[in-house]
Amino acid sequence: MVKYNPRTWLALIFHPYSRQVVKTLFPALAAMGVYTALIIFLIDDYFGLEFESTTVVHSLLGIVLGLFLVFRINSAYDRWWEGRKFWGSLLNNSRNLATRISVMLPQSDKEIKNEIGSLIAAFAASLRLHLKDKLNKESRIFNEFPIIADLVDKEHIPNAIIWTLTDRINRLYLSGKLSGKQLFLIDKDLKELSDILGGCERIKNTPIPYSYSMYIKKFIFTYTITLPFAFITEFGYVSIPIVLLIFFILVSVELVAEEIEDPFGNDANDLPTKELSEKIKRNVYELMAD
Amino acid sequence: MVKYNPRTWLALIFHPYSRQVVKTLFPALAAMGVYTALIIFLIDDYFGLEFESTTVVHSLLGIVLGLFLVFRINSAYDRWWEGRKFWGSLLNNSRNLATRISVMLPQSDKEIKNEIGSLIAAFAASLRLHLKDKLNKESRIFNEFPIIADLVDKEHIPNAIIWTLTDRINRLYLSGKLSGKQLFLIDKDLKELSDILGGCERIKNTPIPYSYSMYIKKFIFTYTITLPFAFITEFGYVSIPIVLLIFFILVSVELVAEEIEDPFGNDANDLPTKELSEKIKRNVYELMAD
Amino acid sequence: MVKYNPRTWLALIFHPYSRQVVKTLFPALAAMGVYTALIIFLIDDYFGLEFESTTVVHSLLGIVLGLFLVFRINSAYDRWWEGRKFWGSLLNNSRNLATRISVMLPQSDKEIKNEIGSLIAAFAASLRLHLKDKLNKESRIFNEFPIIADLVDKEHIPNAIIWTLTDRINRLYLSGKLSGKQLFLIDKDLKELSDILGGCERIKNTPIPYSYSMYIKKFIFTYTITLPFAFITEFGYVSIPIVLLIFFILVSVELVAEEIEDPFGNDANDLPTKELSEKIKRNVYELMAD
Amino acid sequence: MVKYNPRTWLALIFHPYSRQVVKTLFPALAAMGVYTALIIFLIDDYFGLEFESTTVVHSLLGIVLGLFLVFRINSAYDRWWEGRKFWGSLLNNSRNLATRISVMLPQSDKEIKNEIGSLIAAFAASLRLHLKDKLNKESRIFNEFPIIADLVDKEHIPNAIIWTLTDRINRLYLSGKLSGKQLFLIDKDLKELSDILGGCERIKNTPIPYSYSMYIKKFIFTYTITLPFAFITEFGYVSIPIVLLIFFILVSVELVAEEIEDPFGNDANDLPTKELSEKIKRNVYELMAD
Amino acid sequence: MVKYNPRTWLALIFHPYSRQVVKTLFPALAAMGVYTALIIFLIDDYFGLEFESTTVVHSLLGIVLGLFLVFRINSAYDRWWEGRKFWGSLLNNSRNLATRISVMLPQSDKEIKNEIGSLIAAFAASLRLHLKDKLNKESRIFNEFPIIADLVDKEHIPNAIIWTLTDRINRLYLSGKLSGKQLFLIDKDLKELSDILGGCERIKNTPIPYSYSMYIKKFIFTYTITLPFAFITEFGYVSIPIVLLIFFILVSVELVAEEIEDPFGNDANDLPTKELSEKIKRNVYELMAD
Repeated sequence: MVKYNPRTWLALIFHPYSRQVVKTLFPALAAMGVYTALIIFLIDDYFGLEFESTTVVHSLLGIVLGLFLVFRINSAYDRWWEGRKFWGSLLNNSRNLATRISVMLPQSDKEIKNEIGSLIAAFAASLRLHLKDKLNKESRIFNEFPIIADLVDKEHIPNAIIWTLTDRINRLYLSGKLSGKQLFLIDKDLKELSDILGGCERIKNTPIPYSYSMYIKKFIFTYTITLPFAFITEFGYVSIPIVLLIFFILVSVELVAEEIEDPFGNDANDLPTKELSEKIKRNVYELMAD
Repeated sequence: MVKYNPRTWLALIFHPYSRQVVKTLFPALAAMGVYTALIIFLIDDYFGLEFESTTVVHSLLGIVLGLFLVFRINSAYDRWWEGRKFWGSLLNNSRNLATRISVMLPQSDKEIKNEIGSLIAAFAASLRLHLKDKLNKESRIFNEFPIIADLVDKEHIPNAIIWTLTDRINRLYLSGKLSGKQLFLIDKDLKELSDILGGCERIKNTPIPYSYSMYIKKFIFTYTITLPFAFITEFGYVSIPIVLLIFFILVSVELVAEEIEDPFGNDANDLPTKELSEKIKRNVYELMAD
Repeated sequence: MVKYNPRTWLALIFHPYSRQVVKTLFPALAAMGVYTALIIFLIDDYFGLEFESTTVVHSLLGIVLGLFLVFRINSAYDRWWEGRKFWGSLLNNSRNLATRISVMLPQSDKEIKNEIGSLIAAFAASLRLHLKDKLNKESRIFNEFPIIADLVDKEHIPNAIIWTLTDRINRLYLSGKLSGKQLFLIDKDLKELSDILGGCERIKNTPIPYSYSMYIKKFIFTYTITLPFAFITEFGYVSIPIVLLIFFILVSVELVAEEIEDPFGNDANDLPTKELSEKIKRNVYELMAD
Repeated sequence: MVKYNPRTWLALIFHPYSRQVVKTLFPALAAMGVYTALIIFLIDDYFGLEFESTTVVHSLLGIVLGLFLVFRINSAYDRWWEGRKFWGSLLNNSRNLATRISVMLPQSDKEIKNEIGSLIAAFAASLRLHLKDKLNKESRIFNEFPIIADLVDKEHIPNAIIWTLTDRINRLYLSGKLSGKQLFLIDKDLKELSDILGGCERIKNTPIPYSYSMYIKKFIFTYTITLPFAFITEFGYVSIPIVLLIFFILVSVELVAEEIEDPFGNDANDLPTKELSEKIKRNVYELMAD
Repeated sequence: MVKYNPRTWLALIFHPYSRQVVKTLFPALAAMGVYTALIIFLIDDYFGLEFESTTVVHSLLGIVLGLFLVFRINSAYDRWWEGRKFWGSLLNNSRNLATRISVMLPQSDKEIKNEIGSLIAAFAASLRLHLKDKLNKESRIFNEFPIIADLVDKEHIPNAIIWTLTDRINRLYLSGKLSGKQLFLIDKDLKELSDILGGCERIKNTPIPYSYSMYIKKFIFTYTITLPFAFITEFGYVSIPIVLLIFFILVSVELVAEEIEDPFGNDANDLPTKELSEKIKRNVYELMAD
């Protein structure tokens, strides 16, 4: 709660990330400022038009736009949170699967336990890269997990790892090392791994519908482009900071929404998938060692 | 994030899709413009009425209308996202089913594996056409998947494919090639295929309740038809662009909502079901080949 | 998308359903008009009071009221959609159950297959009537499905049909025609039928809490009853159409919400349960014939 | 739909429940009226201050407050509906469990069937009292269901009933009257009973977070306490009814929210748990009699 | 309902917690007051600028900000409620697991029952400390539950307890004391324990996205820092209380949201995990004693 004293607030405003946002928006802000100044100059000073401006229209539309932006950020956040749930669930399922294998197989089957442990850890690591479009033949994970080295030519690596896992488990069942009951319990965990893979791919590949995203951009554009006309009569050149303030607040929302909408990227706010996949590796190896 | 420089924004405004929306709305916009001009002419110039207009009522109602529109687009988006989830789940289940069959049956049962693979791929392809109302006796998929050629006379093709799949699996169980445990695991995937079919049909066949959709349309109509009266006294002929701006923003939302509400159509924003069903075919065939 | 040309909009306004809403509201609208006129006459003309009206209070309260109405219609829509999901799920489960029975029992057991098919179709048909409070001893379904004729005296027919189904399946299991595994799979479908029954009853029997529904009605009432005072000074008799417009828009929402809140009635917007229950019958019979 | 003629509306306003709300709020309303009058008297008449009031601040804050109140009532309604779902699910599960037991045990096991039927009905009845904090050694249900008479000293009666049910079922399994498959099916119903118990306890024991509830109360308080200052200059003593109107509408929401937030109490709007638990008893006994 | 008489309201305002919030905010409020006074002094008295202020911009932005704050608190509340659900579910699962073990093992296996009971209770107790980052080698729970004393060196204690439980159950299965069916039922409860652990960790470790949280803080900051300019012309030094009032209301929301966002801390509003983990212990021991 200490973070609420004003110093922290000031620190926030000058935080590197914050400055980066301002930098990203700077060209747009500058253009907007010039545009507003030009409009005012032309109407007030050059043509000297008798223009009676009104803030009523922009008040009304501003609230409607605000509603859309809140809905926009809301659905972006839902995607982010759903992605987080998938990764939390991945951590959990990996642990469960490792616990079960570790407990169900006799102490002597050290080797097969280690293989399955490697496959589980490799799945998380490969999913991470897969979601970042960074998984290729040169990826370091083929060295890190030698067990998946021969899957390097597969089109869809995480899928192939699940296939390998399913195959191993099925063979343990056929050789009588796992009972039908135990196969069933393990199979559920495997299915969830596959659901997590599918869910993450869905979030990554399906942005918000194009027409909707474009509608909001057009709304913001139309709104800000007409803003100077609303303030010109009453405020003259003072309209410039007012227009910029409103513009900054509205466009920032879109920026924040776009950033948290894709939770698997490399932005400052994306999910800590690296930490999570390493934690999975550490946890699974520890459980397998028991 | 680069897409936030103003050029992209301008590009967006003149994007083909954007122009198409404007074209769709052009007649309505024109009619609205003429109507507003006529009202102003009649009141101000022809009859010269002493009319004291107010923007208070339209400010209030505009916010309420905005709330309804946000809720409207929200529920349209939910349907779109639910449809996307079903197709993501279809991809996933097809993979799972193929993995299981591939792993559980011995290498020698090449033929039956291929048959089941074809059925899975055919299910996705037929579901796609079924949801677009394009599935008939001439559909190309009966050539693409010869295994379903004899289902061509069935009333409900995707249903018949599930029946065939269930029948095959059950026969494998009765002949002892699958154990009871394995039957059970596979059956769950089949049930999910059927749930996906049902869910997609539900989204397709159940638009937003008629009375509610009509209420919003009537609200927009009443609102815009009375808009000129709100601005006439203060702004005269300048009311025309103001009215058109508000009209355009409000009606666009309905347009966007109607488009994303049915995610299985052929609009620019509809789900990439073609890509997905082809991906399913590719993935399933690869898994079956192992 | 063609439906967005203005002619369709006009058609909508004069649609029979739309006219019916107006007719339903006409007495209220008339009373409101007379009331407003009376207030204006008394204050302005009869007593000639110096009354300074303000629209600020009604602007503020109007937005708050709008928020409540949106929430109101939102939760009504959720119930409607939940009801739709239950019926979609009913269609699905009926198909699944029929597929399973058809596939699992040998061709020779024609008779028992048909019986179970009839019971499934009868369940949907009886649920439909049960939810409309139209299920009694004279209902046509006892002729349509002779197999349930002896359940006519039961208090809760759909329940009794599930009991009969469960009993049949259990007997097939005890006689060895279904294995334990198969019993288990079928049982899950039966449980879902029962969950659907329970869910539909819940939606039907539990309207929105009384105190909340009444609060909204009182809010609308208080709001509209005080509306004339807000506009009187500035607009005189022109207040009448303004008040009527606002009144119409607010009360319509309640009307729409009440109509879609109970999705199992006979209103124009209620769910097509008749079509669905007939589709179930047709689908189930087709699947059983295979 | 007939209920929308104005007479019903008037009836609503003078409905006993409505009058009770007014009565509850009367002291607060009276105090608020006196306070407002005092403020006006002091400022206008006693000190004759030059006070320039503004409604801008209260307009803005009023909308923000409205947003919070809608969210407040929304989450209260969610709890109410979740509670309703649990009880609908209880009805369903009780029926399912009874159907299963009735069908799976042979006709001759009349006695054990009746015992289990009593336990199921007793669970619902005891849960109802448990949620109202009315379950003690004198409760009538120990006479109504003699089978639970010896559980009277347990700390947590519904829990103990589930224990007894689980124990009975397990003994039937051990004695071979239920197969492993059947045990499994029944166990799922028992687990759901226990989940329902836990869910209801959660809703009952966890009100909305204290800080949040207090924040809303403080917001309403601060808002209403400063309201007179907003209207004083322009309206003088006419401010009193305005302030009271706004006060009444805002405080009523809190009142409604608090009432529907706890769905298991004895208020007019609470869930009909008595009817439901009696229906469960009737249904279960009927099913067991078959 | 009695709590609605004005005395309670006054009591609320002076409640210790309430005073604490004011104390936390006092420095910020003081700084804001000084800042506002300075602005007014400089503009009005020192430079005597002709400054025409407007409340339009802050009205509009205030509503948009209000929307964001409501969404903010909404998602904080969702996290809080999800955390509560996990703990309710923990209570439930612990009871279920204990009931099952108690019923399924013969009376004579007193010792193993007690061990499992201790492990269940220890899991809840260790989860509580784990979520508060207070679980270390000196924690009292290693004395309270001697059975986990040898897990003291594990990196992740709750995980290790689940491993131990799974191991015990699996050994009971291998030694024939639990049948395959019973193993399956118990395994589901164990999996849920692990899901609860994962879910709680997810809530604890994933705050709202940084960029979004910062955006809201920046919005509030920018808004309040420009507030004095909106009121200065019309209200002069009276702007100070107005600005402070708005500032207090806006910043309080953030404060409340931050507090309920992390439900596992030690704030006044955090979940009663201590009570719940003790209740679990009591309940489990009672069930095991039967």
